[in-house]
Amino acid sequence: MLNKIDHVGIAVKSLEDALKFYGSIGIKPYHFEEVESQKVRVAFIKVGESNIELLEPTSIESPIAKFIEKKGEGIHHIAYEVENIRESLNMLKESGCQLIDSEPKVGAHEKLIAFVHPKSTNGVLTELSQSMH
Amino acid sequence: MLNKIDHVGIAVKSLEDALKFYGSIGIKPYHFEEVESQKVRVAFIKVGESNIELLEPTSIESPIAKFIEKKGEGIHHIAYEVENIRESLNMLKESGCQLIDSEPKVGAHEKLIAFVHPKSTNGVLTELSQSMH
Repeated sequence: MLNKIDHVGIAVKSLEDALKFYGSIGIKPYHFEEVESQKVRVAFIKVGESNIELLEPTSIESPIAKFIEKKGEGIHHIAYEVENIRESLNMLKESGCQLIDSEPKVGAHEKLIAFVHPKSTNGVLTELSQSMH
Repeated sequence: MLNKIDHVGIAVKSLEDALKFYGSIGIKPYHFEEVESQKVRVAFIKVGESNIELLEPTSIESPIAKFIEKKGEGIHHIAYEVENIRESLNMLKESGCQLIDSEPKVGAHEKLIAFVHPKSTNGVLTELSQSMH
């Protein structure tokens, strides 16, 4: 039911600094985006069928800024592509999983997304994602 | 140069508990392994071309036990498959990256692996992995 790892989100203080590591092994981002609602700038790096999303806060109010303040830079969340996000959310609800979003919302790249609470996933902030195309 | 995400390693207190989340969306592990050198039991879950590795410490001396004590359960490392691990390590060394393993060693599934220090990768413990077949 999980098609693939859609992306791994990494919280960084500076996109420019973070891209040095990937640049040093010949990997370049293919897209940059500013997500106003989350107060972040994002760089996307393609790795096989998945993406690495580097997330840089644009404000101290950003959830990513708060994450870095509390835990330091590092992996922030993992996102899985699912066939049918509503079906997946229903299965999770029925099994007693705690959801952050009980209904899918529209995320980056016009995908339907929903977050599962880390309490139900061993400390891993987990995103489900369904392509609308 | 990064072929794909080979796996994401998640530190958990109990494999049995952790597998409940994946079980609730119909995903089962395909393999269990005990790695004596790291004092962990590992459950492998296939997701697309990648794997999720759930790591449960078998001793309080395990690096995974220490990670959980310090940071709680959560994502421990990310591993990328590369074409030629020695070439990748050389490129990283030349660019000033700090390596944990400057020479590859044999890891699980008879792969050549090496770790890059989180200081050089924005807090993300990063593993490079090359299949020997």
